[in-house]
Amino acid sequence: MEKLEHIGIAVKNIETANKLFASLLGRDHYKIEEVASEGVRTAFFEVGGVKIELLEATREDSPIAKFIEKKGEGIHHLAFEVSDIRKRLPEYEAKGFTPLSTEPKKGADNKMICFLHPKSTRGVLIELCEEIRTSSSL
Amino acid sequence: MEKLEHIGIAVKNIETANKLFASLLGRDHYKIEEVASEGVRTAFFEVGGVKIELLEATREDSPIAKFIEKKGEGIHHLAFEVSDIRKRLPEYEAKGFTPLSTEPKKGADNKMICFLHPKSTRGVLIELCEEIRTSSSL
Repeated sequence: MEKLEHIGIAVKNIETANKLFASLLGRDHYKIEEVASEGVRTAFFEVGGVKIELLEATREDSPIAKFIEKKGEGIHHLAFEVSDIRKRLPEYEAKGFTPLSTEPKKGADNKMICFLHPKSTRGVLIELCEEIRTSSSL
Repeated sequence: MEKLEHIGIAVKNIETANKLFASLLGRDHYKIEEVASEGVRTAFFEVGGVKIELLEATREDSPIAKFIEKKGEGIHHLAFEVSDIRKRLPEYEAKGFTPLSTEPKKGADNKMICFLHPKSTRGVLIELCEEIRTSSSL
């Protein structure tokens, strides 16, 4: 893993949470992005090169809605940047970690992502992520 | 807040957790430190400038033992570096956050620390920390 890319925090209401985290972190969020496929609206803050991603559920069957129902608001996941996520996924599986999907999927912030099940990582939901590089940017 | 200093993760057994996180992060921990006053043994990893601190309870009344009993293993806190922690603490209190102690106390890794109650921070236990600078280093 190259670096900690972001920390995901599950919140009930992103507008009020944005105000609270702006007060806590001493800076405003720099973008809002909805990921319809995951049923989440996200807000991003940046502190010293690390992103804080607030996540609000946009529908009842969203993983964030289920998380809050079970555990309440709080830290949801840690996301680490990897190179070549498709190649790394079976490597993590071979090491005994449990990917939540066989293929990476499109996440927020122009990333391909895959989660590792917290049962295989001491209760910490880990996201592996890789920046999507389009051919037009080559 | 200047930067994310570390992420604290509560684990039941630091030896087996160290092996698992070494496999996950692709690097070994670089130090072990016991903080007797807090009833914890800690191990530190470093990934791209951010520290991951594993925390194991060394006695039953340790905050980490209570956390694991209530919530299981997992992410325990986020620590942010601040300058002049004694000055910042009443500022955070004035903003509506709830410090867990009126004075900063000595934590691991040569830091003065103070926590903000998770009820005031959307379920996220926040540690404010400041490097201790001894007069001999001036």
